Amino acid sequence: MACNLKKPKFTDMKNVKEIVTLYDLMVVQLKSLYNAEMQWSEAMETVTERIHSTELKNLFRKDGLAAARHAKKLEVILKESGAELLAKRNIVVRDLLREINELQDSSADPEVLNAGLIVIHQCMNHYKIAKYGTVASYARLMQQERVAGILHEILEEEKAQDEELTRLAEEKINEKAKTALVL
Amino acid sequence: MACNLKKPKFTDMKNVKEIVTLYDLMVVQLKSLYNAEMQWSEAMETVTERIHSTELKNLFRKDGLAAARHAKKLEVILKESGAELLAKRNIVVRDLLREINELQDSSADPEVLNAGLIVIHQCMNHYKIAKYGTVASYARLMQQERVAGILHEILEEEKAQDEELTRLAEEKINEKAKTALVL
Repeated sequence: MACNLKKPKFTDMKNVKEIVTLYDLMVVQLKSLYNAEMQWSEAMETVTERIHSTELKNLFRKDGLAAARHAKKLEVILKESGAELLAKRNIVVRDLLREINELQDSSADPEVLNAGLIVIHQCMNHYKIAKYGTVASYARLMQQERVAGILHEILEEEKAQDEELTRLAEEKINEKAKTALVL
Repeated sequence: MACNLKKPKFTDMKNVKEIVTLYDLMVVQLKSLYNAEMQWSEAMETVTERIHSTELKNLFRKDGLAAARHAKKLEVILKESGAELLAKRNIVVRDLLREINELQDSSADPEVLNAGLIVIHQCMNHYKIAKYGTVASYARLMQQERVAGILHEILEEEKAQDEELTRLAEEKINEKAKTALVL
């Protein structure tokens, strides 16, 4: 699949500063998202092993696969743009994964743990929603319509995932977690 | 101001695990938000010093003050609930602030830097939107209507801030940053 993200020649004029143009900023953000999706998809295997609700386990597993698909799409965009795939480790995602581990270690009740996992997952979704929304608008601004389209599609998937998590939390998980109060 | 968040007696049955009930999970999340708001409001002074757009500088400054106000409200809720105010350092916010520093160091163009600062600010907003949305729904579920109301109010402010940032980015900042391409 060929993308339309062509590196403008004038960015060759870069000095020691990594970010000179809006295009550079977009590439930095795309790499950050690429690393975020990679970390998330890799971590989901271990995370889901410790989830007690089948429904939530399936949802996390599905989102792990979606993250891998998104990473693949970002890889194509980055390769087409001539950017290196070697991205700096996304420290925010590393932190969110750490929060998951800490939560799994410090939760005594499986239902409450499920509720807590949803919060962190939604933080991850919202982090990505903010970033995808922005890079899509940069791409549009630079007339990179095809790239903007792909990013917008991923953004819509992230929003749908987030709504699915809210629904699951409000309709089932939180209500069950509440009963941990009266055990 | 008195809040209605009373610690249920049965949480005294806690073992070594910090989170036993949904109430415990809510307190952990409130502390995490409290620390997030404190870090953000403290950092804004230094961050705004290095912002070149007056409009963006004012917006960051205003949001720093809002963060301090939110922290104050959370402090009241936590004190009323008998929880200690000593919260663990929120590592996600620490790292978003690190991202801001890195961006300020690696950006050669002030307009592109402004655009990048907005992305990170929106990541921060979305992180808080996910958390406030969840704790408000926990409070509602536990019939803590007054607390739910305060949290919902903060949530709405966060959403409004986010929309203001999007508007500023799309109507002015990104357009100016784009011109950095043709310098």
